[in-house]
Parts: sequence; C-alpha cells; structure tokens
Amino acid sequence: MPAKEISSAVIQRLPRYYRYLGELIENDVVRISSKELSERMKVTASQIRQDLNNFGGFGQQGYGYNVEYLHTEIGKILGLDRTYNMIIIGAGNLGQAIANYADFERSGFFVTGIFDVNPRLQGISIRGTEIRMLDELENFVKNNTIHIAALTLPKLKAPAVAKDLVRLGIKAIWNFAPTDLNLPSDVIVENVHLSESLMRLSYNLKSMEKNSEKE
Amino acid sequence: MPAKEISSAVIQRLPRYYRYLGELIENDVVRISSKELSERMKVTASQIRQDLNNFGGFGQQGYGYNVEYLHTEIGKILGLDRTYNMIIIGAGNLGQAIANYADFERSGFFVTGIFDVNPRLQGISIRGTEIRMLDELENFVKNNTIHIAALTLPKLKAPAVAKDLVRLGIKAIWNFAPTDLNLPSDVIVENVHLSESLMRLSYNLKSMEKNSEKE
Repeated sequence: MPAKEISSAVIQRLPRYYRYLGELIENDVVRISSKELSERMKVTASQIRQDLNNFGGFGQQGYGYNVEYLHTEIGKILGLDRTYNMIIIGAGNLGQAIANYADFERSGFFVTGIFDVNPRLQGISIRGTEIRMLDELENFVKNNTIHIAALTLPKLKAPAVAKDLVRLGIKAIWNFAPTDLNLPSDVIVENVHLSESLMRLSYNLKSMEKNSEKE
Repeated sequence: MPAKEISSAVIQRLPRYYRYLGELIENDVVRISSKELSERMKVTASQIRQDLNNFGGFGQQGYGYNVEYLHTEIGKILGLDRTYNMIIIGAGNLGQAIANYADFERSGFFVTGIFDVNPRLQGISIRGTEIRMLDELENFVKNNTIHIAALTLPKLKAPAVAKDLVRLGIKAIWNFAPTDLNLPSDVIVENVHLSESLMRLSYNLKSMEKNSEKE
C-alpha cells in the first residue's frame, strides 16, 4: 500500500503505535483523537499525524482515529495480516523464554521448531513444541515452511548456523547472538544485542550523574 | 569529557564500535585504520571518523587507531570504567537468561540479586546468586548498593514494581516488559521490546517480498 519509501525512524515507531492501539482496544476505546493518543504515548500530536500520513492518514477531521481500523491497518503495514512459522536455534534460557512467550503467537508468530545441540534437552516440550537436535534442522526446514529463524546461541556458533539457514532458504533471521551476521542482502536480519542495550543504559546513567553534578 | 551534546544516533552506534574493538583485541590487532575498521563494520570510513571526532578523534594521521586505547576510551564514554550492581525482577526464563549471561559481567555489570513471586523458585541459585522472594526486595535494596534493575516480569506487574524501585532510589531500569513505564525524568529507562523487534522483522520481510515481486 505505501507508495513512497517509509523512513526507518517511522518503521521504528510503528510497532509502538500498534501496541498502544491494541491496549486501547482491550480497554474498549472505539476512537481517539491524535491529541489524546499523543498524551498517552508522550509524543507530539503533530508527530503522530505526520507518521500516520505516511500511510494515507486514517484520521478524520473532528472525529479522530477509529482505533480498531487504525490497529488493523498498521498491522497490515507491519505484515501482521498473515502468520509466520518461526524456529528457534538454541534452547537455553533465552530460547525457552521466546518459545514460552504467548504474546508472539497472538501477533501471528508461531514457534514450530526448537533446536539445540545438548542431548539432555532432546524431547523436552515447550508449549507443545519439542526440542530437537540440531542435526535434524536441515530435514526439518526442508519438510516444513519456515519463515523466521531466531538465533539464541553463542556468538561463535551463530555465523555458521546462520549460513546454513540461508542455504536452506530462510529469509529472515532474528539474531540474539552478540555478533553481526554477514549474510546476502536478500536476507532480513533483525538484531537484538542485549549487551549494547545495557551499554546505552550505562551511558545514559553516567550522563545523568554528570548533569546532576553540574547543577 | 564530551563538551558538546552527542546525538542519540552516535550513542546508538558506540556499543557496536566497542564490541568490534573488543574482538580486534581478542585477535591481537594492535592498530587499525578507519578504512579497515569500516570494511569490517560495514559503515563508511567517513562515518567512523565523524563519530569518533565527537569525542576528540583518537586517530593519528598515517597510523590509524590504537585499538586498545580506543576501546578503553569508548568504554569510558559508555560508563564502562566502573562496575554496576544489577538486580533482576522476574526469575522466569528471560530473567534467568540475563542472570546466566557471563558477558555482562565482563563489561562490569554484576547481578547481585534476583527476585520472583513464585515460591518454587526460592533459594535456587543462578551463577551464585540465589532467587529471593519479591517481599524481600525493599530490605535488599535498602541494605545493598544497586545501580540497575532489570524488569523481566509480565507487563501488568511491571509499572507497580518500577514505581517501588524508583521510590527505593533506583535510577536505572532495564525494562523487558512490553509496556512503557512512566517514571520521573531523572530515572533512566532502557527498553527491550521484543515484540516490537519481531514486528520490524515482519515489516522488512514483507517489504522485501513486495520488492522482489516488482522485479
């Protein structure tokens, strides 16, 4: 639907709109003005209008936004009008946390396979999906439709597994390993680098302390 | 040290420089040109020079960067020249994953307390830190120096616990709950919203598929 290129800053913000609109629906809110939405989300009303104008607006003068409609439309933009099969490589705590997270399923992301190299984990079931050994990965991917692979394994193992996945035709990797994957440009990689997030926290904490010293 | 305001885009990139420089040190690389660093990191050399110039440069014409020195200096900027005591609220898979992650400790972040409401978890030890019950939190925070609290608990519980933590003097919250915390402006909140990350992945996957249809 979007005719023009959407800036990455807007894309960065869209999931947050989607989350807020979902919460409004849960609270039976039918419509909302950009002013009200802006107060809840702590962004300016003009930012909201500008962001949503990227997709043709959705708002009506004097009425505001229809919450359910806007939620659905943003969902479509985000690709949430379909379902995704996801496999998780690495069944440690982080892999299990993701497999256990029911919210993803509500958004259409279904965990259909979990893999590890640790034989002690073999056959353990997480929300109905049993942990398989990594040597079964190739057959599994060949025999099932898999859209996304989450990598929750050590950084030294991640690049080789990622290459295997790409060879098997996987086009989207959700990478939790603290390393960058160098993959072909037609493969989407979304990184979650927890260490980097923690460093931004310490940077901000340090800046805050410095500023309060100055005062 | 930085005299001027550093843009958030630069802050966003600094931990990545820090990580690459750490890997270079592990590989015994003593110095590197901005060109070499740019090839490894897949950013332009001029971007690297520009980013590092924010902090007074560090590079020497014809020599490049001293890897160890640059790593140390960026570490200082990020607040990694000290240690942080961190508590984790929520000892589910995600909380345990964080408690188990040795990399954080190497960067100076020490998990000194883990809390949950589930009595079955009480006393279980994760890397030497035992899980305590949430009703012990107040005393624990009062009797120990805590710099950071990681919230790995359900979204409905997160806001109240965050408010308690702020009341007890915690100034930095690493929030994994899929909700925004409305806290005083002198409290640093760093969010890790996994659902939003997954939605960016599906957005990019959808865009990629659309583009390949056009070709």
